[in-house]
Amino acid sequence: MQLMRIGERNSERPVVRADDGTLYELSPLTGDIDGAFLADDGIGRARAALAAHDLPAVPDADRVRIGAPVARPGKIVCIGLNYRDHAAETGSPLPAEPIVFMKAPNTIVGPHDPVLVPRGSTKTDWEIELGVIIGRHARYLGSPDEAADVIAGFAISNDVSEREFQLERGGQWDKGKSCETFNPLGPWLVPTDEITDPGKLGLRLWVNRELRQDGTTADLVFGIDHVIWYLSQFMVLEPGDLINTGTPAGVALGRPDQPYLRAGDVLELEIDGLGRQHQLLQNA
Amino acid sequence: MQLMRIGERNSERPVVRADDGTLYELSPLTGDIDGAFLADDGIGRARAALAAHDLPAVPDADRVRIGAPVARPGKIVCIGLNYRDHAAETGSPLPAEPIVFMKAPNTIVGPHDPVLVPRGSTKTDWEIELGVIIGRHARYLGSPDEAADVIAGFAISNDVSEREFQLERGGQWDKGKSCETFNPLGPWLVPTDEITDPGKLGLRLWVNRELRQDGTTADLVFGIDHVIWYLSQFMVLEPGDLINTGTPAGVALGRPDQPYLRAGDVLELEIDGLGRQHQLLQNA
Repeated sequence: MQLMRIGERNSERPVVRADDGTLYELSPLTGDIDGAFLADDGIGRARAALAAHDLPAVPDADRVRIGAPVARPGKIVCIGLNYRDHAAETGSPLPAEPIVFMKAPNTIVGPHDPVLVPRGSTKTDWEIELGVIIGRHARYLGSPDEAADVIAGFAISNDVSEREFQLERGGQWDKGKSCETFNPLGPWLVPTDEITDPGKLGLRLWVNRELRQDGTTADLVFGIDHVIWYLSQFMVLEPGDLINTGTPAGVALGRPDQPYLRAGDVLELEIDGLGRQHQLLQNA
Repeated sequence: MQLMRIGERNSERPVVRADDGTLYELSPLTGDIDGAFLADDGIGRARAALAAHDLPAVPDADRVRIGAPVARPGKIVCIGLNYRDHAAETGSPLPAEPIVFMKAPNTIVGPHDPVLVPRGSTKTDWEIELGVIIGRHARYLGSPDEAADVIAGFAISNDVSEREFQLERGGQWDKGKSCETFNPLGPWLVPTDEITDPGKLGLRLWVNRELRQDGTTADLVFGIDHVIWYLSQFMVLEPGDLINTGTPAGVALGRPDQPYLRAGDVLELEIDGLGRQHQLLQNA
């Protein structure tokens, strides 16, 4: 079972996707898939309603726009240089503890929406990441063992980045991370208990059909549970928050022979069990 | 006229404060003071209702808790090293362009709520700032001259910061900026047209009754309109967003002879025309 949101941007409605791919309306259960729904055992209730055949099928399901699978989060927190090969390709040492930065929450778009190259940009780059959606309030977790309980599920996240803005315009990364459309998310929110091991997921990203990133979460410097526990020591995590957990090697920044993104380019992304994204680049 | 929100945390209600200090309920006009209210000329409508004597007075107005004057923003964007004397005290060169970082939006608390010293903190610091509340959608503004139109108003903002987390734990500042309770805001949102010149406001902060910051927005490296225009080139600003525009000299970081904050300390802050805050430090 996966959770999704479909419909026009900013007026998406909640649906549940059965394992055979059929979509069912979740509107009888909730107005949206958001922090309140997740905190109130929404996933359990969706699963029960699906099993009881209580939900109407979505009409014209193959013609709807797919939105991000959760409503706009209260915050997006990102972990930098969290794969060994990516740290190496950027010429950075392995971090001694997680590097933390943020993206503006209004960067989130659907998994197949256009991505805009910002005005004045010459270094727009891609980053496939395992996105973690928080399901419960978390403050000063006692150990990484407590992290799994506060995770609602996972989704593909594209942490689009403008490298000049990020690295050459003052040194604080957020400036190159928060541009319009810079966080495609989805297509699905896959509940935690439907992923056997989030530490063994393959991540792949293609630019114009050429494979550029081909990693696995087994290469994370700081694993998912460690990251969630760590963040809870510095901030209060809330239901609906999105955590972007880092990207493996293969970004344009790491390969001087690869061009950065331009209008007309096409990105495709997939993570084992989490579905697939594709985005057309356009000028802002 | 000033806008306020009063009541228990997370269930504040909107009120308007007349220039004689009397509080009137705004609930007949709106459920909250948020981005939607501001974008829909809420300030103009509040002013008209106040002038028409259409609003009931708040009972027991001197006994209510004061919350932040706007509902939780979609994002908090901060400008670093934006006063000449503060850049100097931190040993930093003047930035060539604004340094941009973010705070988690759930750091916002009322102007007189306790501020929590994070667990493990030894360097919790204060920063009085002129907070700008956005009133209209802003994307690629053509020039700083267009900025005033997208500003709803101003409020005192305390950009509380943990300097070890900010500067010694990986280098990205957000880690030391997003701790629980780290952004007291208010007491008032003062509409733009009630501030004669936001570039000539005195800012003062006391620690345990000793004056530590005593600056003026005349010393901003990048003025308010420049900052808003600049940010709109890198991200989409939305109604209700908060921009913390930088702090003048006098923080603990700049004075090795001053201790950082500890439980029991008291902060007081004021900005000309924007009212006054006071906070008791407590352990998280």
